[in-house]
Amino acid sequence: MSFIQKLRDANPLIHNITNIVVTNFTANGLLALGASPFMADAHEEVADVAAMSGAVLINIGTLNEHAIKSMLLAGKSANAHGVPLVLDPVGAGATSYRTEVTHRLTSEIKLTALRGNVAEVANVIGEKWSSKGVDAGSGEGDVVAIARKAAAQLDCIVIVTGAEDVITDSKTTYIAANGHPILTKVTGTGCLLSSVVAAFLAVAGDQKLEAAAEAISFYGVAAEIAAGKTAGQGPGSFQIEFLNQLSVLTTERYAELSKIKEA
Amino acid sequence: MSFIQKLRDANPLIHNITNIVVTNFTANGLLALGASPFMADAHEEVADVAAMSGAVLINIGTLNEHAIKSMLLAGKSANAHGVPLVLDPVGAGATSYRTEVTHRLTSEIKLTALRGNVAEVANVIGEKWSSKGVDAGSGEGDVVAIARKAAAQLDCIVIVTGAEDVITDSKTTYIAANGHPILTKVTGTGCLLSSVVAAFLAVAGDQKLEAAAEAISFYGVAAEIAAGKTAGQGPGSFQIEFLNQLSVLTTERYAELSKIKEA
Amino acid sequence: MSFIQKLRDANPLIHNITNIVVTNFTANGLLALGASPFMADAHEEVADVAAMSGAVLINIGTLNEHAIKSMLLAGKSANAHGVPLVLDPVGAGATSYRTEVTHRLTSEIKLTALRGNVAEVANVIGEKWSSKGVDAGSGEGDVVAIARKAAAQLDCIVIVTGAEDVITDSKTTYIAANGHPILTKVTGTGCLLSSVVAAFLAVAGDQKLEAAAEAISFYGVAAEIAAGKTAGQGPGSFQIEFLNQLSVLTTERYAELSKIKEA
Repeated sequence: MSFIQKLRDANPLIHNITNIVVTNFTANGLLALGASPFMADAHEEVADVAAMSGAVLINIGTLNEHAIKSMLLAGKSANAHGVPLVLDPVGAGATSYRTEVTHRLTSEIKLTALRGNVAEVANVIGEKWSSKGVDAGSGEGDVVAIARKAAAQLDCIVIVTGAEDVITDSKTTYIAANGHPILTKVTGTGCLLSSVVAAFLAVAGDQKLEAAAEAISFYGVAAEIAAGKTAGQGPGSFQIEFLNQLSVLTTERYAELSKIKEA
Repeated sequence: MSFIQKLRDANPLIHNITNIVVTNFTANGLLALGASPFMADAHEEVADVAAMSGAVLINIGTLNEHAIKSMLLAGKSANAHGVPLVLDPVGAGATSYRTEVTHRLTSEIKLTALRGNVAEVANVIGEKWSSKGVDAGSGEGDVVAIARKAAAQLDCIVIVTGAEDVITDSKTTYIAANGHPILTKVTGTGCLLSSVVAAFLAVAGDQKLEAAAEAISFYGVAAEIAAGKTAGQGPGSFQIEFLNQLSVLTTERYAELSKIKEA
Repeated sequence: MSFIQKLRDANPLIHNITNIVVTNFTANGLLALGASPFMADAHEEVADVAAMSGAVLINIGTLNEHAIKSMLLAGKSANAHGVPLVLDPVGAGATSYRTEVTHRLTSEIKLTALRGNVAEVANVIGEKWSSKGVDAGSGEGDVVAIARKAAAQLDCIVIVTGAEDVITDSKTTYIAANGHPILTKVTGTGCLLSSVVAAFLAVAGDQKLEAAAEAISFYGVAAEIAAGKTAGQGPGSFQIEFLNQLSVLTTERYAELSKIKEA
């Protein structure tokens, strides 16, 4: 796997329809990584933007009717033009509205990949999942089962992130063990990760599962290095160093530190 | 007073309907502090989100009709479910539209706390206040009078921030003397403070005035330390170190540095 | 030229109707510089805000019908009250929608200045321009010609930024040679620059071309210093140090490092 170099060489355009909390951080993260972010949600142009992009990311973090229509228009355009499409179902299950919107999106457009925590992914496929008691030790087996079930049901790549990350197309499953808990103290690190998955898919050709797995692992290694360099300082410094590492982390250093295995 | 420890232990969910300039900074500030931010303004879900939250913050920094309806729906839900509600009347008095919206909000929903500068708070209760000539030396007495009048009129806690900060329920009044002028060189530091007040109110029980006073003082101490550590560097470095300090400032160190007294 | 000192003394109010990606960075950049940002796009108040401001910035980075109406209302108010008005035509030419909106804006309101890259500026005046092959070496002559043509056609100052920056009113033309490539790795650096031009225009009196030229040069010098201080660290650290430099860069140091000449 060496999709990061392809990404940095190709500088793919990534169309993001995302929430108002993370637009800036997402754009800066994609730029640092080597991709070219394009945020656009006007109904008049989203289909055009999706069609010209290397991948499309839709994220339901802050919803409204205008944004849902934008997501459907962009998603259908992506489907029609063979452009990879990633959904981040932020808060699916937290309110009935979000669950309903997620079901509407997944019924009307075909995803290339879905990225969420286990509660979100479970809710997307109509499974109940309490967010209490989810940890890598006791819950890993169940997380893998949920991820595989979602991948089979939606016929797409499913990525469930947590203490360990699961990447699966229902047949082949990778477990990634990099990352750092301080990621949860910076808003939008999950949202940016979904956009990063889109950027890797843009250069994946027909190796989409492998590219998605590398996206998750690369992101985790960058976080580990940033957490190490800012240990004890706090989440402000971590956030900035993390953006740095997305830019300066080399393919070689990544390969040394990556902990990813087939399940 | 030791609400910061309760906050960090409880990790309360804080529902923010705030302006588009400060969403990211607010979310990162609340995460650093130990709270769990939730930004949602869809009419379909705001009542649900408010009902499940520890506190609700509404901020009129960038208004439109959709947002006003969201604020009313969330505010009424907060009132109905006994959830503390904080209003930040950004720019009240700057345009007649903002003044009118503020009056509409305060007439239709019951606030737990109002946080603004003296011109904003004065405008909320229909007093004229020129923003010229407001300083801690000559104006302190008047600021306290305005704050108490607003607290009596709105029957809520009123916090007027400036060179010194006034926290009052009209009967008991605290003056907080921490903080640093560089806060005015970073956008959203007032907005984030209002969300921080909401986070402290979420764990206040029936000691809401004391919790609000600690919120103001804790924030000011964090700013002082951050300003000291980044002296001479500029507002970019201050902003990042301030997020760090919201996370790493201990209860003990806070208690040593806090300057707060009853008026 | 010494508009930066006037700006820091006058602290002008700058009304920004800008895209959702860069609101926070724009506000922090203007605060660091010494201006006072005001973000407002409600139809009920934009004309009032524009009328009371030192300058108005409109940016089409994330469009929708509501925002377009806000821009027209604010722009017409600025025109009526003699308030300088800057347009940043983000992505003009990238989609037909953006090109159409740009033509609508420039036909209904009178600009004081237009700031974009060469492809955007060319599209605003209906010229075709491929973004491939644009560099300071081979393309400078053509860039100057496009900038002058746009300035003559729109009867305003035109600023085309790139490896070198062109500032012209069609008769007098300046070439500014400061800046650093890492600016392209931080989102919103072009957008903020347009707001910075607005801030300089707010204190320009009748020397608007000279003030615009100083804005571009000052910004470039701040970027160079920040890039030098964070060399090898990455775009996260650069972004923060750049905000610092907008605040701490002195008039004297700027004058030493500025590379600007009449063409």
